[in-house]
Amino acid sequence: MATILVTNDDGVGSPGLLALKQGLSRLGHVVVLAPERNWSASSHAKTMHKPLRLAQVTLADGSAAYSSSGSPTDCVALAAGGVLGMKPDLVVSGINAGYNLGIDVTYSGTVACAMEATIQGMPGIAVSSVAVPEEGVELAAIHAKAAAVACVLAAEVLEKGLPEGTLLNVNVPGIAPERVRGVHMTRMGHRRYPTGALIRRHDPSGRPYYWLGGEAPVDQLDDGTDVGAVAAGFVSVTPVTLDMTDYTFLRELAAWTTAASVV
Amino acid sequence: MATILVTNDDGVGSPGLLALKQGLSRLGHVVVLAPERNWSASSHAKTMHKPLRLAQVTLADGSAAYSSSGSPTDCVALAAGGVLGMKPDLVVSGINAGYNLGIDVTYSGTVACAMEATIQGMPGIAVSSVAVPEEGVELAAIHAKAAAVACVLAAEVLEKGLPEGTLLNVNVPGIAPERVRGVHMTRMGHRRYPTGALIRRHDPSGRPYYWLGGEAPVDQLDDGTDVGAVAAGFVSVTPVTLDMTDYTFLRELAAWTTAASVV
Repeated sequence: MATILVTNDDGVGSPGLLALKQGLSRLGHVVVLAPERNWSASSHAKTMHKPLRLAQVTLADGSAAYSSSGSPTDCVALAAGGVLGMKPDLVVSGINAGYNLGIDVTYSGTVACAMEATIQGMPGIAVSSVAVPEEGVELAAIHAKAAAVACVLAAEVLEKGLPEGTLLNVNVPGIAPERVRGVHMTRMGHRRYPTGALIRRHDPSGRPYYWLGGEAPVDQLDDGTDVGAVAAGFVSVTPVTLDMTDYTFLRELAAWTTAASVV
Repeated sequence: MATILVTNDDGVGSPGLLALKQGLSRLGHVVVLAPERNWSASSHAKTMHKPLRLAQVTLADGSAAYSSSGSPTDCVALAAGGVLGMKPDLVVSGINAGYNLGIDVTYSGTVACAMEATIQGMPGIAVSSVAVPEEGVELAAIHAKAAAVACVLAAEVLEKGLPEGTLLNVNVPGIAPERVRGVHMTRMGHRRYPTGALIRRHDPSGRPYYWLGGEAPVDQLDDGTDVGAVAAGFVSVTPVTLDMTDYTFLRELAAWTTAASVV
């Protein structure tokens, strides 16, 4: 029986984590080790300058879990190091309260968990959906759907494995479950955050401050992308590689004069 | 005259930042905006849940710079948003006190600055070397060499541009400058951190704690990689793409039964 580590970046108390844990329990022995607090947009941060603590906690359904004082990545590294008494066969992170589409992948703590799993030699799957579903749909229904998708995919990953250095990034549309049209295997798309999204104001003492973000991303709905699939009502599954080399440009770069310089 | 933003993840007081700033001043108008503290291994963290502050500071050579309360990524986003009065033509981050080779790229705050630049539509270059050079070599000599390399490369990037979504990750060997053999354009290599690198101990109160990392990475010196080039005494320049899709596996994945399921 496979042992599956469930973790996330929203913190151990997140309802998405619980739904994922419950869904995957049909498939194997599920252990939970997640950050004690919310680490959204923490990316692949790893704690190497200070010690980490583990604590036993109880999830909302009464089941046992572990929390860590560290980052999402730390949780996976701790589990890989054997703090839970075994090395997991599979790591699934989520269900994140917000899509991780296009370049979100480079910021996402949820995806970073699956990256760290991959680096540590375990297959990794990241699962994300919305924080607020479409009108009239319960978040619990979205979570149940996303957990069911994760379960089908996890079973196939446990059977077939993943290529070395590659993880799966899954996004489930935040629409009524019966309207989900199926699963699309996709490439990373484009999602632009308006660069004008910088707020400048003054605080009560008259000192200036700045606030990043706030504006919704502008999705480019290209065919075959994660962004396009989710917008069209499909679950998106993107294979993400840690080999970020731009091989096409590498050939061109070799002709640059810098390459010939001894500097 | 080009405006070049210099930033880093080691903090605005880092000697590597100053060396890079001085080296690039030959090429254009250099502005410095860097984090007020050290953010090593912070990865691509972005601050969206709280306001950020800017401060004017003076570097060790008496020149003016800006620091921010935010992350390395925040510094680039703030500059792209116009807090310094213009949008930079190029972003160069570093010189990092430690190589960023192979999968280090996914954790690195230095590389994250170049990623954020790319996302915000500016070409980005990340420059890294060692914290401690080989015996008998001054760190200042390493920094001067790395800054000279960055200058040559930056000039060529300003002239030719970079493909959309691609940045350059540069690593300069920490050896006597006259022993540096040239520049190799490389792919991302393999750098394994021993998985046994988890320390478990008890604190003075008898409570257990855990510490990640500590052991030196094991490099696989494949030909053509960043890891191999630096080990052989060459400067490594790797084109890194933000499109992390595993296109090879995507074709295989389309044949998975999950793809055909309506879930």
